[in-house]
Amino acid sequence: MYDLIILGGGPAGYNAAERAGHAGLKTLVIEERALGGVCLNEGCIPTKTLLYSAKIYDYAKHGKDYGVTFGSAEIDHAFVVNRKNGVVKQLVSGVGAKLKKSGVEVVKATAVIKERNAEGFVVTADDKEYVGKQLLIATGSSPALPPIDGLADSLKEGFALTNREVLDLNAIPKTIVVVGGGVIGLEMASYFNSVGSKVYVVEMLDHIAGPVDREISKLLQKDYASRGVEFILGARVTSIKNKTVTYEKDGKTVEIPADYALVSIGRRARTAGIGCENIGLKLERGAIVTNEQGKTNVPGVWAAGDVNGKSMLAHTAYREGEVCINNILGKKDRVNYASIPSVIYTNPEVASVGETTETAKEKGLDVDIQSVTLKYSGRYIAENEHGYGILKVITDKKHKNIVGLHMIGSYASEIIYGAAMMVETEMRVEDIQKLVFPHPTVCEVIRESMFM
Amino acid sequence: MYDLIILGGGPAGYNAAERAGHAGLKTLVIEERALGGVCLNEGCIPTKTLLYSAKIYDYAKHGKDYGVTFGSAEIDHAFVVNRKNGVVKQLVSGVGAKLKKSGVEVVKATAVIKERNAEGFVVTADDKEYVGKQLLIATGSSPALPPIDGLADSLKEGFALTNREVLDLNAIPKTIVVVGGGVIGLEMASYFNSVGSKVYVVEMLDHIAGPVDREISKLLQKDYASRGVEFILGARVTSIKNKTVTYEKDGKTVEIPADYALVSIGRRARTAGIGCENIGLKLERGAIVTNEQGKTNVPGVWAAGDVNGKSMLAHTAYREGEVCINNILGKKDRVNYASIPSVIYTNPEVASVGETTETAKEKGLDVDIQSVTLKYSGRYIAENEHGYGILKVITDKKHKNIVGLHMIGSYASEIIYGAAMMVETEMRVEDIQKLVFPHPTVCEVIRESMFM
Repeated sequence: MYDLIILGGGPAGYNAAERAGHAGLKTLVIEERALGGVCLNEGCIPTKTLLYSAKIYDYAKHGKDYGVTFGSAEIDHAFVVNRKNGVVKQLVSGVGAKLKKSGVEVVKATAVIKERNAEGFVVTADDKEYVGKQLLIATGSSPALPPIDGLADSLKEGFALTNREVLDLNAIPKTIVVVGGGVIGLEMASYFNSVGSKVYVVEMLDHIAGPVDREISKLLQKDYASRGVEFILGARVTSIKNKTVTYEKDGKTVEIPADYALVSIGRRARTAGIGCENIGLKLERGAIVTNEQGKTNVPGVWAAGDVNGKSMLAHTAYREGEVCINNILGKKDRVNYASIPSVIYTNPEVASVGETTETAKEKGLDVDIQSVTLKYSGRYIAENEHGYGILKVITDKKHKNIVGLHMIGSYASEIIYGAAMMVETEMRVEDIQKLVFPHPTVCEVIRESMFM
Repeated sequence: MYDLIILGGGPAGYNAAERAGHAGLKTLVIEERALGGVCLNEGCIPTKTLLYSAKIYDYAKHGKDYGVTFGSAEIDHAFVVNRKNGVVKQLVSGVGAKLKKSGVEVVKATAVIKERNAEGFVVTADDKEYVGKQLLIATGSSPALPPIDGLADSLKEGFALTNREVLDLNAIPKTIVVVGGGVIGLEMASYFNSVGSKVYVVEMLDHIAGPVDREISKLLQKDYASRGVEFILGARVTSIKNKTVTYEKDGKTVEIPADYALVSIGRRARTAGIGCENIGLKLERGAIVTNEQGKTNVPGVWAAGDVNGKSMLAHTAYREGEVCINNILGKKDRVNYASIPSVIYTNPEVASVGETTETAKEKGLDVDIQSVTLKYSGRYIAENEHGYGILKVITDKKHKNIVGLHMIGSYASEIIYGAAMMVETEMRVEDIQKLVFPHPTVCEVIRESMFM
């Protein structure tokens, strides 16, 4: 009998497990694949490993702008993939060690919720039954794979790839079609563009990068277009077969022959087959319905991470998992979704938090919107020949607090957490004016923007 | 007649001038050299330009760890210096444009305060007289050049260099002795080490990096020592002449023949020759005495930046200048010196804010001190083979708020501002636990450390 059984050992699950174990709850994690989930094994971490190698390789192209010339630069894709596997292995074993240290048990098996009985919730995993007083469902998400003509066979044949397989190609493709211009699609497009592939990005919407402030996503698109990525927007993919991606746009049908097609059009909560129906869990569009405390409609059952369909980000999952544990422990806690940052690890990076120009308009918020060039930063100029980065600040007109901040440019990924703090703590312009930012940095443009 | 005359167009002066002009004060800046001061012309910005080129060049040495091999890498020092000049020129003209836009007048001349009369303060500059109702002294600092045997002549002959001349060497020295292992010394040591010079750092104290938390400065020293920099600590330089630096250590006298000696043993407030005595300004150890509002002992006279001898950092100067202007405008404001971050732009970078292990001990503060490896960050592992970076958090035991945070590792320079916010706003551990940091980043180790 466990105090808590957690289904899924990804960011939501493993982090919650650690906190629960630390707090003295007898905790079991059941994970069918590797600890760390999609994020660690086939998402955030492996992509960042690849992208860092690509970034180094990019210096070979740009070094001479800074007085550094390289002979013939070469990137060894197989080495990069192998190194990626090493990094992942190290981190997965780190997660295992942390769980062990917190006294959490881990079972590698596929879990199915069987029923609720007088003792608690019964979960079966590889023919064994486990009973937990409470349940935390953190089964994550899977790539959305719509019924596109030929897709299922192409996945089997290895022409179509998801985020998982694309990380393990043993050679650099000559041509790759990225179907879906969201975060995953753009990061992989960036990698393959850097290492020399011809990259197409086919996107159904009229813009890339989903919810990112449109001014910024346009800058990103323009940059990658100038580096040879071909963007096909407002296009519907009609088939993926015979080593060809076919799309319709403006009434015309176009075929792109390619070595591979990466399908990255979104992710769906993983609720199928885990027995939600056996305890009457409420789903909406396939995702488990939760409130800000992580509570489901069934008392004693919690859900966190991608499976609730809310944010689909690893760091949201961490926080959601913690919030569940805090509430389980009787400490009131909730997730404030308004101050969750997000990053696209292209080169340059894109980072965002809070309202965008578009969401502010949609919601009818009374805001000031300020776009500031990063060239106000001496460091940015020192480090970015031909840089075009911007910072965008969205301020509530009445209360003068920061409700959104967006960047495209160097270090954006490491800078945005401070902006998230500003949004979370409802900092006002005059408070930020009084903060001292180190000089010379890119982040100090945030401060500078407060005086405009 | 001006509302405000500012002596000095460096970070304290030009920033204050912009705010003053913006607020409608009739403002004059008198600067004898280029706008931007030491920081922009021969400090922060030029060094960062050089160091960025060095960083790119460093990738040639480490690329293969990440699957990228370069042919023969070469750094063109003359190009780097030339590019540096271009960056500086661009930024200096940017400062000029900003001042113009704010309606600030600029005179290029050497200013001397002549007297106080019924109208205000009289300042002479190139035989002209200007009168200001109030004065802001922002004349900055100069390198400390103690009476070391031979130093004066060596400076003339070009063997001894200050921060100014070292930036304009037309070739990479074979051997350079850095006298003084503070920020400037270490950054230049880092550059010359990267580009292939044999570098000696001779420091009088038993540790490098001045007030930096000792655990971190030791790591930095160890790293650079492993890359060939020779550190000679607890040593007193007795002569700098005949292309030789001589020092005494443990009773022994040692000579280091070298191409150059960089003298970077500190900076002194620039108060000589500006007429402080003509209006009875109070000085202490050569620096103008000010309170937290920037007020001097003479009503109507303010001082900001290095000239007050307090912090000797460009970003402190910005803030001090602004605080003076706010108080001149009747808006109460003060500088909180406890939350001013600082950075050393070595590779890896060092960044700090607030109390260190040493200052906490000296002050008898009741604190928890936590050292955390940056390997808790997946991004750090992905991007740092052989990385040894750490994060150090110093927490008040009673109130559980963050009083100090220190880092050595990638992105430290761009991360520390958020930690400064935490110190400034007296954030507690439990507040930071509830913040969401983007994943995967190095900064999220701050969050992680709050759960240990």
